[in-house]
Amino acid sequence: MKILIINGANINLLGKREKEHYGNFTYKDLLEYFKTIEKEYSNLDLQIDEKQSNIEGEIVNFIQEANNYDGLIINPAGYTHTSVVILDALLCLNIPIIEVHLSNIHNRDDFRSKSITAKACKGVIAGFGKRSYYLAINEIVNIQTKLK
Amino acid sequence: MKILIINGANINLLGKREKEHYGNFTYKDLLEYFKTIEKEYSNLDLQIDEKQSNIEGEIVNFIQEANNYDGLIINPAGYTHTSVVILDALLCLNIPIIEVHLSNIHNRDDFRSKSITAKACKGVIAGFGKRSYYLAINEIVNIQTKLK
Amino acid sequence: MKILIINGANINLLGKREKEHYGNFTYKDLLEYFKTIEKEYSNLDLQIDEKQSNIEGEIVNFIQEANNYDGLIINPAGYTHTSVVILDALLCLNIPIIEVHLSNIHNRDDFRSKSITAKACKGVIAGFGKRSYYLAINEIVNIQTKLK
Amino acid sequence: MKILIINGANINLLGKREKEHYGNFTYKDLLEYFKTIEKEYSNLDLQIDEKQSNIEGEIVNFIQEANNYDGLIINPAGYTHTSVVILDALLCLNIPIIEVHLSNIHNRDDFRSKSITAKACKGVIAGFGKRSYYLAINEIVNIQTKLK
Amino acid sequence: MKILIINGANINLLGKREKEHYGNFTYKDLLEYFKTIEKEYSNLDLQIDEKQSNIEGEIVNFIQEANNYDGLIINPAGYTHTSVVILDALLCLNIPIIEVHLSNIHNRDDFRSKSITAKACKGVIAGFGKRSYYLAINEIVNIQTKLK
Amino acid sequence: MKILIINGANINLLGKREKEHYGNFTYKDLLEYFKTIEKEYSNLDLQIDEKQSNIEGEIVNFIQEANNYDGLIINPAGYTHTSVVILDALLCLNIPIIEVHLSNIHNRDDFRSKSITAKACKGVIAGFGKRSYYLAINEIVNIQTKLK
Amino acid sequence: MKILIINGANINLLGKREKEHYGNFTYKDLLEYFKTIEKEYSNLDLQIDEKQSNIEGEIVNFIQEANNYDGLIINPAGYTHTSVVILDALLCLNIPIIEVHLSNIHNRDDFRSKSITAKACKGVIAGFGKRSYYLAINEIVNIQTKLK
Amino acid sequence: MKILIINGANINLLGKREKEHYGNFTYKDLLEYFKTIEKEYSNLDLQIDEKQSNIEGEIVNFIQEANNYDGLIINPAGYTHTSVVILDALLCLNIPIIEVHLSNIHNRDDFRSKSITAKACKGVIAGFGKRSYYLAINEIVNIQTKLK
Amino acid sequence: MKILIINGANINLLGKREKEHYGNFTYKDLLEYFKTIEKEYSNLDLQIDEKQSNIEGEIVNFIQEANNYDGLIINPAGYTHTSVVILDALLCLNIPIIEVHLSNIHNRDDFRSKSITAKACKGVIAGFGKRSYYLAINEIVNIQTKLK
Amino acid sequence: MKILIINGANINLLGKREKEHYGNFTYKDLLEYFKTIEKEYSNLDLQIDEKQSNIEGEIVNFIQEANNYDGLIINPAGYTHTSVVILDALLCLNIPIIEVHLSNIHNRDDFRSKSITAKACKGVIAGFGKRSYYLAINEIVNIQTKLK
Amino acid sequence: MKILIINGANINLLGKREKEHYGNFTYKDLLEYFKTIEKEYSNLDLQIDEKQSNIEGEIVNFIQEANNYDGLIINPAGYTHTSVVILDALLCLNIPIIEVHLSNIHNRDDFRSKSITAKACKGVIAGFGKRSYYLAINEIVNIQTKLK
Amino acid sequence: MKILIINGANINLLGKREKEHYGNFTYKDLLEYFKTIEKEYSNLDLQIDEKQSNIEGEIVNFIQEANNYDGLIINPAGYTHTSVVILDALLCLNIPIIEVHLSNIHNRDDFRSKSITAKACKGVIAGFGKRSYYLAINEIVNIQTKLK
Repeated sequence: MKILIINGANINLLGKREKEHYGNFTYKDLLEYFKTIEKEYSNLDLQIDEKQSNIEGEIVNFIQEANNYDGLIINPAGYTHTSVVILDALLCLNIPIIEVHLSNIHNRDDFRSKSITAKACKGVIAGFGKRSYYLAINEIVNIQTKLK
Repeated sequence: MKILIINGANINLLGKREKEHYGNFTYKDLLEYFKTIEKEYSNLDLQIDEKQSNIEGEIVNFIQEANNYDGLIINPAGYTHTSVVILDALLCLNIPIIEVHLSNIHNRDDFRSKSITAKACKGVIAGFGKRSYYLAINEIVNIQTKLK
Repeated sequence: MKILIINGANINLLGKREKEHYGNFTYKDLLEYFKTIEKEYSNLDLQIDEKQSNIEGEIVNFIQEANNYDGLIINPAGYTHTSVVILDALLCLNIPIIEVHLSNIHNRDDFRSKSITAKACKGVIAGFGKRSYYLAINEIVNIQTKLK
Repeated sequence: MKILIINGANINLLGKREKEHYGNFTYKDLLEYFKTIEKEYSNLDLQIDEKQSNIEGEIVNFIQEANNYDGLIINPAGYTHTSVVILDALLCLNIPIIEVHLSNIHNRDDFRSKSITAKACKGVIAGFGKRSYYLAINEIVNIQTKLK
Repeated sequence: MKILIINGANINLLGKREKEHYGNFTYKDLLEYFKTIEKEYSNLDLQIDEKQSNIEGEIVNFIQEANNYDGLIINPAGYTHTSVVILDALLCLNIPIIEVHLSNIHNRDDFRSKSITAKACKGVIAGFGKRSYYLAINEIVNIQTKLK
Repeated sequence: MKILIINGANINLLGKREKEHYGNFTYKDLLEYFKTIEKEYSNLDLQIDEKQSNIEGEIVNFIQEANNYDGLIINPAGYTHTSVVILDALLCLNIPIIEVHLSNIHNRDDFRSKSITAKACKGVIAGFGKRSYYLAINEIVNIQTKLK
Repeated sequence: MKILIINGANINLLGKREKEHYGNFTYKDLLEYFKTIEKEYSNLDLQIDEKQSNIEGEIVNFIQEANNYDGLIINPAGYTHTSVVILDALLCLNIPIIEVHLSNIHNRDDFRSKSITAKACKGVIAGFGKRSYYLAINEIVNIQTKLK
Repeated sequence: MKILIINGANINLLGKREKEHYGNFTYKDLLEYFKTIEKEYSNLDLQIDEKQSNIEGEIVNFIQEANNYDGLIINPAGYTHTSVVILDALLCLNIPIIEVHLSNIHNRDDFRSKSITAKACKGVIAGFGKRSYYLAINEIVNIQTKLK
Repeated sequence: MKILIINGANINLLGKREKEHYGNFTYKDLLEYFKTIEKEYSNLDLQIDEKQSNIEGEIVNFIQEANNYDGLIINPAGYTHTSVVILDALLCLNIPIIEVHLSNIHNRDDFRSKSITAKACKGVIAGFGKRSYYLAINEIVNIQTKLK
Repeated sequence: MKILIINGANINLLGKREKEHYGNFTYKDLLEYFKTIEKEYSNLDLQIDEKQSNIEGEIVNFIQEANNYDGLIINPAGYTHTSVVILDALLCLNIPIIEVHLSNIHNRDDFRSKSITAKACKGVIAGFGKRSYYLAINEIVNIQTKLK
Repeated sequence: MKILIINGANINLLGKREKEHYGNFTYKDLLEYFKTIEKEYSNLDLQIDEKQSNIEGEIVNFIQEANNYDGLIINPAGYTHTSVVILDALLCLNIPIIEVHLSNIHNRDDFRSKSITAKACKGVIAGFGKRSYYLAINEIVNIQTKLK
Repeated sequence: MKILIINGANINLLGKREKEHYGNFTYKDLLEYFKTIEKEYSNLDLQIDEKQSNIEGEIVNFIQEANNYDGLIINPAGYTHTSVVILDALLCLNIPIIEVHLSNIHNRDDFRSKSITAKACKGVIAGFGKRSYYLAINEIVNIQTKLK
């Protein structure tokens, strides 16, 4: 089982950025956290690939190549609220897509509570820090294995 | 460990209502699903209490009595988008609160994408049917046990 | 043939309230008016049940129990313009629903011209005082008897 | 007793137009339906005159000549949502006016739920196909005969 | 000297319509009033032609034929607030144009305070009943004779 | 002299809720404060009745039974900003009504500065904590005794 | 007969300001123009007083002292679009008030087409340069002499 | 092959109107241009009929009679931005419809960039003067002949 | 104890202005009313100073000199709804500020229900005529004496 | 003659994406289609270059290098509705620019009907699939050859 | 070289007002700071005149008398966001005008980010405290001396 | 001392683009101008690095690497008005940031007067052409050297 995680603009700064929202946890810590999850699901031979870009169109490129994965988890960050092209790219995929956010988008600036990109997703998980990714992975595994 | 789940208006009709969004799964099935989860977490002696009401003020009453729980999961349903009084009640609690939705609120009617009540919550999980509750319980257990 | 009439908030004050819009006709007069109509349709063995509540969620409860009627006539009064939960409850019914208003909602305050709840109804009849109910009953009888 | 029915733009296409909203019933069928109603009310010597135009200003002309009728029923169709001049013409009449619509204007496009012209009417009946006219005629007869 | 006066929808009802705004003065009185003004300006051989229509496009037709006049006075009435086509027609003229209104458009309904058509005019005179026309004629005469 | 005080949703949590706005003063303290005021006005045989509910419709019920009081003081709390049904109920009363708020509604969230319910009141007193009630009682006594 | 003319902010710069809208005609020319008009109406013993201020509150002061005039002509200039206090002051007068503008307020910036102050006036004359004042004086004379 | 071209309000003034947008090319030139195109497509026996009206409802009439053509090209001009009735009429046709504009509607006044009527069309061609019609005819021929 | 009362634009016209909102009570009566209150509080040696101006900036000047008072009561009248500079001036004070209004600002024109200036105040009292001032004085005395 | 065609985000997915709007025609088919057109215009020695990017800024780069072409055809796709930087880049070119869209942007989501980028173009052609490009090429050839 | 600096409402309170935005620096300090700058530019015989007023119209008066200066620096403070009359006065000047702000108007309240008055200025410098004035003076000197 | 200057989309076209706003000064001239400034501040060993990109995400990359500079000057150009991701990146920096614009953003298109990115900056300098950069450099030098 292969899952792709796409992180949007400035996620690579995690731990340096707006600590009241994101804490001290760094981007490098996040990548290692994904490795831990891979091990947890080793019985499924889970492979988690991560791609990050600050460039809107590169994120579109990543999405266009995602159809051979079993699921896509995307945190579009600042592009969540404005990007029609990411929405359009997501609409072309035929795999389960889950949008995640580190913080709760409903209790920050008004313009951050609206998600353009979520229209193309199965669901949204927001507000649990790194655990938002964990829950999303959990859900994609569940969808694909139909075990639960 | 005790978790309270509050379900808002018309959730008791699950399985009869707008099947394109919610499927055949009934409210009774949902309650049994919670029992299954209790068993899954029997090592933690997990107790899940569920309350449902169609009346906005009764939901406020439920919330006011929730402080002795280890966590609150709330699906305000139709009140999500307008209820200041549920928001105010949630703001008085000192336990973790997670808002859940069966369907993805970002790809239905425009007025359903805005959540007033989520401003008082730690996070939001939307779009995974009964699994939205499962992930939320998973998260509250995680917060309280600090195991992960 | 059984028809349910649900009256929303403050309809029980009829005759005491804003007389420029509703006249001297009282709520008690309204209930007797329904009895008169029952007699007019005695050949059809028409039974008209009326329920009134000032509580939004109780109106939802009334609606949830309405499926064994041949038709529902609802005057949501002040909840017409804001209630998503009454809309959601109405969407679960499989019987003809007609929304009625005593006064013409299009020539009073601006906020009274918009109906959220009518989205779930077959049609709307507004502006004819007690006669709004008469016309709605007439129409439900027509739908069910297919005589006309 | 004489009643004038004014039908607005494209009503003459009934049966050819947007069948999901209006069905197969044609404009010619509608005119014959009015004849049937005249017979039903033959004891009142009811005369129903119908005028149709696609031209906004001709509808104003029809209205200006309507004062010698006992009542006016108007379906302004596409002009419902924008016409100040039809509103102004209706405001000059001293006879009962009822606005009717074949479909429920509250559950179609947003811009179709607002009625400018209804501000000058006693009431609105919408959503019952040809029966919308029947109920309106019924109501005008009632107002004028004061029998009920 | 020849002046054209174009009156829009429902002006022909003057004296029957909304008397709180327009009084008992009738359309026929208005036409005679114009005759009186012709006499007052007989030294200039003033000829005042008046055209009235309830039909937006006929008003456009009137305007298209106005270039051989020395000035145009237009009271678009209900079309003032919405008509792009009257605006477009006025933009083609090369003679002085003055917009007049019987009542003060700034202290009635909000939607009546905005004028689309005035964008193509030299100026606007509103609120003086029949005198609005008198002042406008006075002004066009002044422009053309350069006497004052 | 009898005065009714109606407190809306979550007022029963006073002292536990958002302390930056309301302080440590509890709901129980508030009820005792009313007793103190009764004594201060013992010469007028003042009786203060208090009712509290979290349910919008119950507040409507309280209002409907308030006509035998000499005055009504209402703090609709979270329902202030949205409740048409409380507005409608207040419009039916013939006694002086004063709306009070513990905090200044004009310097909190934007949506809290708008009062739907105040449209039916004589006046509004906001921002003085428990003293808001004291000033309102003072004013109703003044209106009824015409002493000052 | 005494008429007061109040000119608002920057009118004293006439001839130096935005010449594409106002031409070379100066404020001093305007005052002399008023003298000419006084002579034209010498049979009525017409006295025209003019006051100008750039200060909103001084304009309010001028208005408060205007009740002993037979009419007020006001050009609020930049305050036209925003001043509630000038509106309030005008509402206290019992003499005819006419608002004038040198240019056509409907074909400049959008924010210049809305007049707050005109709500308190009998009518508005805009777009005729100094002639706007002439027509307004003409109209006030007409109102007071009832000759025409 | 027969194509109908409908031109809306003020197109008959072409060459006299707003030359910065439309140039010196006249309406008569436009009709002759259509003749030239007929000849260019003489192998297809192409017949181009043109109708023009300034009256919104007449345009509706033209559309209602267009079903026996192989295609409709419409330039609604000033009605493009507001006409619900033209939209409704177009929705009844079963032939290819193309909306054309002489000028680019996206770089003029804001209100000219929105097209109500285009919702019922296959496509829109705007900004190429007479060539807009040429390209539209070219496209309808292509659709019907399936040659390309 | 010294209290400053600042009255805004047109308050000096009290008794002459919009009597449906303010009654016959004059500005002079208001000033005498303040004298009566001074006597009522003679035990506190209460001194009430009143300043009134129609000029926004003079009100700012009054506020800038108010820091040596024990409290400020301000009725900004027409400036309530628009004045950023009065807001800014109030934000510089370190004494209790109460905003008062003679009428209930929530049930008049829409634009009168919004208060910019109240953001800088402790609270607002509106709707009780001269009594609004009385209650505000009562409250400032209370704050400063801490007796109640 | 050299024409540059720039295709925006996700156009490279043509044939895989939202087939209800775009059909089975692929991006590769589109490129071959351009080759066919080159041959059709071989007498003009037409060279069509195509560039595609998902990255907004790369599209800006393409535009900046387009001045040596005889014309530019751009389909900005999802960037059409939001990109100020593409608009700014287009404003720097001195060659004819035509915006094309595969589908009719006026009858899809509301946010897709607005074009920021078209403000810098000669015209817009939308709704004809690959034929939109054909018509645009046809038009640029026409402009440059002045043959028609 | 003579430069005029105009400071708007409440700038005279500098150092007492909202210290989180402006610090302890006082208005008197600001005036002395200007003296220092005069000395720095003594080679140019620079004379800096400063005027401050809380009254909108007095600021207009100051501006009207500024034409004999070599440049105007204006900090309209609270009037920045609303004053049409200051805008109009600035539009009459023929000298370089620079708008300055002590704080960054883009990261405070939303209503403070919009500048009406800047439309008439060459540029804006905001956010550098007293240094905003220094940079503006530097720029006016540069413009006039053409040295750099 | 090291300062980074980041220029956004289309700045590299300077001198070719919209000359009415930017003149003939080219991008190359701008780079040389920075060299001149370096020399002017040679006593401080000032080093100015410039980066330009048309790609939003590359600008984010530039910002992420700016923390070792003594100050950042950014001209986001077309991204100023929409880019949340540039805002987010700027919020991570701990050095002084100044936003500059060549032209005055307050007197061009409405959408150009709003700055999203300025929320993260110390201040904004707009309208002085190349001098905007000069003043910003001057200010950063001042902040860092604390000499003035």
